[in-house]
Amino acid sequence: MKRFPINQGVPGFKFAGISAGIKGNSLKDLGLIFAEHPCSAAAVFTKNSVKAAPVLVCAEKTKNNSVQAVLVNSGNANACTGLQGIKDTYRTSDTLSLQLGLNRTLIAPFSTGVIGVKFPVQKIIKSLPRLIKNLSAENSKSFAESILTTDTCIKTSALKDTINQETVKVLGIAKGSGMIMPNMATMLAFIVTDISIEKKLLKSILKEINEKTFNMISVDGDMSTNDSVIVLSSNLSKTAVTNKSSNAYNLFKKMLHRAMKELSEMIVRDGEGATKLIKIRIKNAKTDSDAKKAAFQVANSCLVKTAFFGEDFNWGRIMGALGSSGASFDMNHVALFINNISAVKNGQGIEKNILRLKKTIKKREIDLLIDLKNGNKSCEVSTCDLSYEYVRINAHYTS
Amino acid sequence: MKRFPINQGVPGFKFAGISAGIKGNSLKDLGLIFAEHPCSAAAVFTKNSVKAAPVLVCAEKTKNNSVQAVLVNSGNANACTGLQGIKDTYRTSDTLSLQLGLNRTLIAPFSTGVIGVKFPVQKIIKSLPRLIKNLSAENSKSFAESILTTDTCIKTSALKDTINQETVKVLGIAKGSGMIMPNMATMLAFIVTDISIEKKLLKSILKEINEKTFNMISVDGDMSTNDSVIVLSSNLSKTAVTNKSSNAYNLFKKMLHRAMKELSEMIVRDGEGATKLIKIRIKNAKTDSDAKKAAFQVANSCLVKTAFFGEDFNWGRIMGALGSSGASFDMNHVALFINNISAVKNGQGIEKNILRLKKTIKKREIDLLIDLKNGNKSCEVSTCDLSYEYVRINAHYTS
Repeated sequence: MKRFPINQGVPGFKFAGISAGIKGNSLKDLGLIFAEHPCSAAAVFTKNSVKAAPVLVCAEKTKNNSVQAVLVNSGNANACTGLQGIKDTYRTSDTLSLQLGLNRTLIAPFSTGVIGVKFPVQKIIKSLPRLIKNLSAENSKSFAESILTTDTCIKTSALKDTINQETVKVLGIAKGSGMIMPNMATMLAFIVTDISIEKKLLKSILKEINEKTFNMISVDGDMSTNDSVIVLSSNLSKTAVTNKSSNAYNLFKKMLHRAMKELSEMIVRDGEGATKLIKIRIKNAKTDSDAKKAAFQVANSCLVKTAFFGEDFNWGRIMGALGSSGASFDMNHVALFINNISAVKNGQGIEKNILRLKKTIKKREIDLLIDLKNGNKSCEVSTCDLSYEYVRINAHYTS
Repeated sequence: MKRFPINQGVPGFKFAGISAGIKGNSLKDLGLIFAEHPCSAAAVFTKNSVKAAPVLVCAEKTKNNSVQAVLVNSGNANACTGLQGIKDTYRTSDTLSLQLGLNRTLIAPFSTGVIGVKFPVQKIIKSLPRLIKNLSAENSKSFAESILTTDTCIKTSALKDTINQETVKVLGIAKGSGMIMPNMATMLAFIVTDISIEKKLLKSILKEINEKTFNMISVDGDMSTNDSVIVLSSNLSKTAVTNKSSNAYNLFKKMLHRAMKELSEMIVRDGEGATKLIKIRIKNAKTDSDAKKAAFQVANSCLVKTAFFGEDFNWGRIMGALGSSGASFDMNHVALFINNISAVKNGQGIEKNILRLKKTIKKREIDLLIDLKNGNKSCEVSTCDLSYEYVRINAHYTS
């Protein structure tokens, strides 16, 4: 598996990203992915019961149909906008379908930004001709820029591999940096590939990988109304994935997994105000659910996150979070390792390692291994620390 | 019901608070409440499965026995200290019992402070004679000071009332300002009264009121290893509470409820870095559990808390938190009121009230009423905002 420059694109796809004035400045805020032909499409959405209008519309559209174009705006979430919000979503995507000469079912809509503000239909419709004109196979960077909100950088993963003697490409583009919690809070990810694959198989792969990647990250424990991940395959490659036992299936799955894992880590690394990437690995939990509960309780503890921000070796807070997670374990058996240095054994601190531990927590990447010694289940969650900057960003987001 | 100055004390009780050098400076960190006779005692403790040594010991001691003295230290939690921590707890409280000439079962031990640091047995034992010498009926302020950690002020509630022609007093003294979440994270509360009441009845009242007061506050969603609430009655008043249908029962319950409610709100108001007290009231939830889930999801949302800190009227984050709570409701029916001003109706913002809402969120106290319109259950949770100061305090606590 190798990387490729994102401006080399993926056969069958064109990209565009422009400023439509939604953000009220000159930043890009309207993006389009257009495929030459209808694509196999699979998508997953937020589990928040307060769903944004585009999530409701897009889930309906992608359920059984192909997708040929993806329309995304940033700066406005079109969430908590009632029936009008749904009408507005249809209005913009239907207008786009007319201008592209496509059946209206083939357009998948996405939005991200402030919740509860009227959707800027006119600004979007007025900008569609310019957006279409901007389309090109090399333009994925503009698209990646157009979907950002509080992100400080674009997030892309471009991988290629030879499968059955043919080159297959996967290009993933994501946004997200706050309100990040399992079930993909405030994150959007668009992944295009040229491999030949049917909708049903693509969907099963996406669901499986999503559970291990985008659903295993957390910035602040808040789940958004707009999260969405969509994978489109142009089916232009001669390499086809037809069943789960094939070599092509396994290789493609590996590519998609790597792309989605990379994007999800980029989101955490760019977590609002984050200064550290913290990987929390739970080992030897009694059940899968216990492993997940323990990992997310530690990942979402404000006290653990501020301690890491302060580079303060306060392992008691990790124990406190574990104890309140509801996971089953004996506190007198727990072991903790930070960057492979033993910090806690049998529930008690290893005093002789304190100097080494104080040094290692100054690193930008923290690997926190927690051995619950109560079974054989494991899981891995990525998170970031909680800084002054997180508070600054979020205290003044709408105004 | 009236207030009384705390230095007037409660018949039957003496208090002391001194510096034993546990905090490494001259601040008070060792406290004692001593009763003339064994008291009826009821206590509740943290539900965190990682319990501090004093919690384990105190729960065992108070289960069936009376209590005549309460020994508290701040600056060290004696948590995650293994078997040695338990031995150390017995050692200090047994030494105290000898010096006071009491049966060792009559001493209830409590600790609060940093987790995972060896318990300073010698410092405490060396200071016990001075602590006992410091005892006086007027000294409750010194005791209140000796139990503080990151608190910025002492927390007391002193109430008296005439019940059956006799004056009855309730004096509550608490500490706590971070790691506060249901099940009383990092908080200690000591309540003394002179009413005559049996252990069993006292326990049932404490449990009931605790659920509505200390278990309905949250600062940061983190639950501590050391939380404890204990009520002691000297039984010196001629007024006796003998059964649940008596007038004395109802009046005493009201006093205790008010004292515990006041103390719990003081804890939230003094929440680490808090600039606002936010009361979240859920109305018309389908079940009690739904009401609680919805209230705590909003109370613990970093995005909601930072928005209030920034005095930024971002109601979409409240909707987002509600939707991820797991409570059952229809997002198109939800209504929100902030300080009695309608903010959201049928899931959508009330634009005409925006100026008034932007003004009201600048207040120090926020009353957030959320009507789920899906049943008739309600609940109330108190929390605070999330500020730079919270991050500062918690990034540098142990060092």
